[in-house]
Amino acid sequence: MKFTVNADLLKEREKCTFDVEELTNFLDGGVKQTLHRRKLENFFISDPRFKDEVPMEYLSHKERYEHAVRKSCILFKKVKEWQQFDESASNFMDIYKSFLGISVGSAIIKDGTPFSVHYIMFIPAIMGQGTLEQQEYWVGRAFSNQIIGTYAQTELGHGTFIRGLETTCTYDPDTEQFILNSPTLTSYKWWAGGLGHTCNYAIVMAQLYTKGECFGIHPFIVQIRDEETWNPMPGIKIGEIGSKLGMNSINNGYLAFDKVRIPRTNMLMKNAQVLKDGTYKKSVNDKLIYGTMIFVRVVIVRDIISSYLSKAAIIATRYSCVRRQSELKPGAGEPQILDYQTQQYKIFPAIALSLAYKFAAMRLWDIYNKVTSQLKLGNLEQLPELHAMSCCLKAVSTADAAVAVTICRLACGGHGYMNCSNFPNLYAMTSATETYEGENTVLLLQTARYLFKSYHDAKSGLELTETVSYLNNFKSLRHKTWTTNLECMNSAFSQVAGSKIENCYFTINQLINSGISQEDAWNEYTIILTKAAEAHCRQFVINCFVITLKTVKLSAELLKVLTELCKLICCHWILNQLGDFLQYSNLKSNDVSSVQSLLDECLKCIRTNAVGFVDGFDIRDEILGSALGVYDGNVYERLIEDANKSPLNQDPVNISFHKYLKPFLKSNL
Amino acid sequence: MKFTVNADLLKEREKCTFDVEELTNFLDGGVKQTLHRRKLENFFISDPRFKDEVPMEYLSHKERYEHAVRKSCILFKKVKEWQQFDESASNFMDIYKSFLGISVGSAIIKDGTPFSVHYIMFIPAIMGQGTLEQQEYWVGRAFSNQIIGTYAQTELGHGTFIRGLETTCTYDPDTEQFILNSPTLTSYKWWAGGLGHTCNYAIVMAQLYTKGECFGIHPFIVQIRDEETWNPMPGIKIGEIGSKLGMNSINNGYLAFDKVRIPRTNMLMKNAQVLKDGTYKKSVNDKLIYGTMIFVRVVIVRDIISSYLSKAAIIATRYSCVRRQSELKPGAGEPQILDYQTQQYKIFPAIALSLAYKFAAMRLWDIYNKVTSQLKLGNLEQLPELHAMSCCLKAVSTADAAVAVTICRLACGGHGYMNCSNFPNLYAMTSATETYEGENTVLLLQTARYLFKSYHDAKSGLELTETVSYLNNFKSLRHKTWTTNLECMNSAFSQVAGSKIENCYFTINQLINSGISQEDAWNEYTIILTKAAEAHCRQFVINCFVITLKTVKLSAELLKVLTELCKLICCHWILNQLGDFLQYSNLKSNDVSSVQSLLDECLKCIRTNAVGFVDGFDIRDEILGSALGVYDGNVYERLIEDANKSPLNQDPVNISFHKYLKPFLKSNL
Repeated sequence: MKFTVNADLLKEREKCTFDVEELTNFLDGGVKQTLHRRKLENFFISDPRFKDEVPMEYLSHKERYEHAVRKSCILFKKVKEWQQFDESASNFMDIYKSFLGISVGSAIIKDGTPFSVHYIMFIPAIMGQGTLEQQEYWVGRAFSNQIIGTYAQTELGHGTFIRGLETTCTYDPDTEQFILNSPTLTSYKWWAGGLGHTCNYAIVMAQLYTKGECFGIHPFIVQIRDEETWNPMPGIKIGEIGSKLGMNSINNGYLAFDKVRIPRTNMLMKNAQVLKDGTYKKSVNDKLIYGTMIFVRVVIVRDIISSYLSKAAIIATRYSCVRRQSELKPGAGEPQILDYQTQQYKIFPAIALSLAYKFAAMRLWDIYNKVTSQLKLGNLEQLPELHAMSCCLKAVSTADAAVAVTICRLACGGHGYMNCSNFPNLYAMTSATETYEGENTVLLLQTARYLFKSYHDAKSGLELTETVSYLNNFKSLRHKTWTTNLECMNSAFSQVAGSKIENCYFTINQLINSGISQEDAWNEYTIILTKAAEAHCRQFVINCFVITLKTVKLSAELLKVLTELCKLICCHWILNQLGDFLQYSNLKSNDVSSVQSLLDECLKCIRTNAVGFVDGFDIRDEILGSALGVYDGNVYERLIEDANKSPLNQDPVNISFHKYLKPFLKSNL
Repeated sequence: MKFTVNADLLKEREKCTFDVEELTNFLDGGVKQTLHRRKLENFFISDPRFKDEVPMEYLSHKERYEHAVRKSCILFKKVKEWQQFDESASNFMDIYKSFLGISVGSAIIKDGTPFSVHYIMFIPAIMGQGTLEQQEYWVGRAFSNQIIGTYAQTELGHGTFIRGLETTCTYDPDTEQFILNSPTLTSYKWWAGGLGHTCNYAIVMAQLYTKGECFGIHPFIVQIRDEETWNPMPGIKIGEIGSKLGMNSINNGYLAFDKVRIPRTNMLMKNAQVLKDGTYKKSVNDKLIYGTMIFVRVVIVRDIISSYLSKAAIIATRYSCVRRQSELKPGAGEPQILDYQTQQYKIFPAIALSLAYKFAAMRLWDIYNKVTSQLKLGNLEQLPELHAMSCCLKAVSTADAAVAVTICRLACGGHGYMNCSNFPNLYAMTSATETYEGENTVLLLQTARYLFKSYHDAKSGLELTETVSYLNNFKSLRHKTWTTNLECMNSAFSQVAGSKIENCYFTINQLINSGISQEDAWNEYTIILTKAAEAHCRQFVINCFVITLKTVKLSAELLKVLTELCKLICCHWILNQLGDFLQYSNLKSNDVSSVQSLLDECLKCIRTNAVGFVDGFDIRDEILGSALGVYDGNVYERLIEDANKSPLNQDPVNISFHKYLKPFLKSNL
């Protein structure tokens, strides 16, 4: 069906004060990148084989999986075609960003492809932890899809605490083989994507035993299904873990071993090694394993979180311009609901957060690149800082995003509850990031540990690393008079974070001095420690946003809108944690109204450009996947169109009437 | 499968300091009520016809609906059997509470029965708005299930703002018929439960036209499907609205009219009437319609919200006693995760909120009964107060519950993401309450309007109604010294609410005095007005909890635990809105640590009795529906058992391997 653009949206677009294409180019990283992305999207999305006659939500769990496999095979065949005329497409990052659940991927397999872990973890793990020979043998086969692999770490009874894993891998020098075993039910591998029915290889993390001694967790490559019959290999029990809140075509699986033998050479031995005779050779540096974890967390924030926030903001903004409801003034007719202040306050923070977290993650990405180049030179000094920052940024951004996506959904009323709005799927995907790649509370406590140590260093006169350098001077800022400019608000965030860390430090040390053990003292204060880590993260995010505004080269018009969004987030976060700011920053009780006023002002300014701004995210209707967020604004037409795709609507009378309802009604006459 | 009770849970139960059965009896309203409930649950849940071989999540949308109809017919046939030997079961409230989605109902049709609206709205609407003749004609047929009805109010383009509805109903005196029409796409009725394929009658809310004049929204009974063939009646377009975040077997539908004629007598005429000649007779009191809305909102809070919070708390508490993870002290082994302070702070507030909102709703229920008995005498004075209180309580409790359920889910890590944990379903059900029966922001602004007026009355020396009487004296409390007893904390909540209302009042009046129109001034402050309404609600909830503690007759042991839960909520809410308390109450900056300490202390105390307490909610495993929350604590066994029910796990190799995956892999060799 072809529609004309909704008149309300047209008007909004005419009002926009900046060049939308400039914003798109900025977010893509340049004009060339935008063109390249659009070409790529066209190439894939236009393929009719990806079109669903019936939306996947209506199918059974099994059918959804089968469609996902079908489409994944077409998709990754097509990726090879694409790579032939596009060199940049041959690296993992490109595949990751384009085809696995964020952009093009989400237009094709909304609920996730069972091949994801193959690209996100199986191949990178071999590259990061395999010897050169191992890489040579495995990476080519994996990258050309002769084999499909997954990464099995988490167990039914063990998650974030990796040392607690139970699967054993015992070396037998007589046969030069390892023997994998699952000693308990809780040791079953659980969650690995694609493990259920899609993969024939897995990297398995297991407790390594050799010469009667345990050396902790190491990675092993295990064949789990026969290449010809796809039957599970002998001694291997395997299946999917069942249906979930979302990501139901990812095919998460479980895996158990009954004394399964693999060659010695299947241990990934770039770091630690087991020699033929069973001698264990320790890794030169076991901290290197952090590199991959940090990488994944930065990517989660920069690409996934930022993208989900943009999508939620686009849908809610466009819908709120088309939807009219109630009255602002008696008799004045129903206004666009985006004209309500409360509605603006639900949606605009999502726009701002999408940018704020993107900028913060980009900054972290720069640090990551600096640190990894130093790692190669054997310098590990900055690794703890990077680790600490990536932990709290992942924790806070994923939690914020899940809340923001929910608020945007609720801002669309009942229609946001429909699957065709795409909010349920967006929420399921966003909320999953709160749990995977490290439980958020555990991550915050890891950051807190680093902050505690840094505060100690600051007190001891040691030099501080960049992201915690504010611990040296946050107190001196507290006497300044409050104004609502960005510099002052930015400094208030450091004051709050600094004070919270300081408080934790003193309180916990007090307890220790009173004779309580360090662990007990720490465990008594985990709630406030997580809050200190959160405050540290927020000051980092605000700081990155402010620095970005200072350094980017953009037109004055666009820069103005970005500045309003930055101010909005400052006000929003200050008012949300007002108690902290009143206690620990130069904000005084009678300054609060100035923050509230600035917030109101920002909402008004952003209102003018809201549609233009979300248009600038340049997310195609197919990728957005929402009846409420379509570019042309024909929301109600799409809702009824989508309803009529329901298999239940193909017959005027459902069979259950004849089978159950009619006999029931008649029996009551 | 039979399991022994998990040893960790056994130990927890032995520690419990109070009599669990006493708590259950208290929550049920008495010993007799507990026995009755258990008997009823047994009668229904033991019926093998309700057992699912394959969990519904694995079926297609259509199959799920068909199962829901099948089970609903069995269920309501069985309800009649039950009624034969239980008199109390013949009223709506009993059916509502037992069979529609909360207790027994959720064990049988987890995702909701398509008959719900028939009981919740169709029958009550006829009783509330039909004449005696109409009641006589329709209620019997409806209650004995000779017909199945729904209630069609919301339209595709119109929700909470009822005056904006577009469906017309025009009287034709020549034929003594009304003519129903849907003039636009946005006027399509949308959302009504059971409307899609399950009902043959609907109460339709439409703009009444007679003698060329529009008299606003009125209710009409319309036959929508033929009793014999179940085909839509002539001129009626009908279908389901499609798949949603949850409640997918409710069969929400759409409905459009092409000049559909119904007899004049099908207008429900208890209040307004249209005479044969088309003369319109106005309702004596059009405020009476509020009664039903208030009733439904109180029920949402008292039964639905309280029940979902209990379920979430039970699941997370039991699982956290079984689950062991990480280390509190090096080498001390993995502790139960409920021993982590951060974990306690995620779960215990849900326990406390379940009670807090139940007590508040019970108090409102008492007021409701008082008011409705006065209504019958023509006294409408207390109606606005009741309306205001029900609005904010519905808004705040549903929002809090959705957050608390989510936090409990996240507290169970990845396993909470599994459908077999029941968290996804619980969340979908809870979050729906945020939107249905009035959008929460709109509701809060209705409360704000009442508070604004009440503050004006207070200033004018008029007498205040009970729930806002604190507006007379909140300022005098501010000079008192802070202590963390319940009285002081309770009073702080009134101070905050009072001050926020006062601020709104003065700021808005200032704007009006400066020449801005009343509507514009109001619209400039809707964000802070909603926050004032929220503060009013929280002071009411805390106040109700404190009064309950003072008045209930319970053992000292149980009362002690209830008191700890009340203190926990006070601390939790104070720390969440600390800025407000620092600005507006007698809490000073150096009192904050006392609140934090009390919070820590409450968590520790509640920890001892947590399992006992959630056991006291006495929710059977079948009603809880969670692999993580089972009474016997054999969590991991249930997880693998549930995974193996997946149809994908019935074959070792899925067909998609032969069809797609194998050709794909081979082509890459």
